[in-house]
Amino acid sequence: MAVEGSRGAEQPPVPVFFLSDSTGISAETMGNALLIQFPDLRFERRLIPFISTVEEARKVVGILDAAMRGPITPLAFSTTAVTEIRDELHKTSCPLIDFFDLHMSRVESILGTRGLHVAARLHGVGDVKRYNARMAAVEYAIEHDDGQSLRALDKADVILVAPSRCGKTPTTMYLALQHGVFVANYPLVDEDFDDNDLPRPIRGLRDRCFGITTNPARLSQVRQERRPNSRYASLEQCAYELRRAEALFRSHRIPMINSATKSVEEMSTVILQTRNAG
Amino acid sequence: MAVEGSRGAEQPPVPVFFLSDSTGISAETMGNALLIQFPDLRFERRLIPFISTVEEARKVVGILDAAMRGPITPLAFSTTAVTEIRDELHKTSCPLIDFFDLHMSRVESILGTRGLHVAARLHGVGDVKRYNARMAAVEYAIEHDDGQSLRALDKADVILVAPSRCGKTPTTMYLALQHGVFVANYPLVDEDFDDNDLPRPIRGLRDRCFGITTNPARLSQVRQERRPNSRYASLEQCAYELRRAEALFRSHRIPMINSATKSVEEMSTVILQTRNAG
Repeated sequence: MAVEGSRGAEQPPVPVFFLSDSTGISAETMGNALLIQFPDLRFERRLIPFISTVEEARKVVGILDAAMRGPITPLAFSTTAVTEIRDELHKTSCPLIDFFDLHMSRVESILGTRGLHVAARLHGVGDVKRYNARMAAVEYAIEHDDGQSLRALDKADVILVAPSRCGKTPTTMYLALQHGVFVANYPLVDEDFDDNDLPRPIRGLRDRCFGITTNPARLSQVRQERRPNSRYASLEQCAYELRRAEALFRSHRIPMINSATKSVEEMSTVILQTRNAG
Repeated sequence: MAVEGSRGAEQPPVPVFFLSDSTGISAETMGNALLIQFPDLRFERRLIPFISTVEEARKVVGILDAAMRGPITPLAFSTTAVTEIRDELHKTSCPLIDFFDLHMSRVESILGTRGLHVAARLHGVGDVKRYNARMAAVEYAIEHDDGQSLRALDKADVILVAPSRCGKTPTTMYLALQHGVFVANYPLVDEDFDDNDLPRPIRGLRDRCFGITTNPARLSQVRQERRPNSRYASLEQCAYELRRAEALFRSHRIPMINSATKSVEEMSTVILQTRNAG
């Protein structure tokens, strides 16, 4: 099939199914990691989670086979682990990429032992201690969002330091929710730039600090949405604050991350790697 | 190798590496979905993200080969997409499960076109519109956490309704951060149980409501941490509130989810599926 630049716009979307015996988060992650390599195609995604019985699997096969009768060949990704359910799903005529099938026997042979082959809730509560730590971290993050409470800064594993609206909060939430890291925010304000000292509340905590920066145009745009035509949102003020913040980070050797070019997932990964290396 | 119940405790952990040209979130998800099937083994996990040059890949091969000289055979999972970097990684003697290698050609043949084979930032900013929606949803969630502001309830896609401390907040954050869903919380208090009407602020919004429940013992325990030995934390009060909340949900046909047995990921999946089906 010839690949043309405009092809995606003309073709109907490819139906894609994500099948799972639990949430389907793994199936979606796996499938999307492959589909992102085909930016010219459009996909119509459908998640079918919690397939827990052979009977449910049979219904899913009905859905997949119906999709096979459409104009575009569909594609299914499965992370289902239970043998009987997998056997049932494999009765479909729809192309099925069975994540478990392809990798499990290889992993078993490397580890020298047989896996359980049960519906394993990777995104269930699982390790209760770890799960509770994540929930506690979310609570902590909300209590310490944007410096509302500076009392418990010394309990933080990580302190994100930045001028207002540089993107501290979503990264804080991501680190808390996905990794159980206790993250506090410290918003830099004009007074913090009076000298080049670290602001008093974080002065003894430099090793936990990460500076978040962005570019002035972007910061100005985000602030405009909050307070249109204010000094706070002016390009001049944004450029000033970012310049002073960056100088502060540099002179105290606080690692800096630019939120204009990185997603919360990428910033979080950098932060975790830096901490582990330190 | 014989499998014994107590084996895991005696054996040193299996070194596991997650290799990626971006955050490694896909590699970790994929690898952990397999490793969770081996609950008797212990794993020592190490993430090596952002492998973006052949030279960096060469260093990684050095790390993997060093691990091969240890007492336990290590295992590596890779989602790296760039051919030259993959070729370099495959020079290691460490068993390497190359997610890209095994699936890409299959997907290409199903889709009838060749994928890009570039470092694709699945967890990068990617679709800017979608990314910004997620960030806006996090902001909205924080502004509406625990009914602090009831003004913009009608802007919510989903309203989580529950007595205090049933686990509304982490689920709110997850739906916002991962799915860009605008979620508001409505905490039920004693006055809301005076009659069996829906509380006034959510009265016209029943279709967006999801009730969160838990069990009394668990709720009492969580509340004890916040206000020890209070009426609020007493088993009796918790049982009363949950009983009344469940009655309210039932009589208004609001879907109910039990947070005592489900993770935030599972609750979120149920909520999204229910909305899509509605």
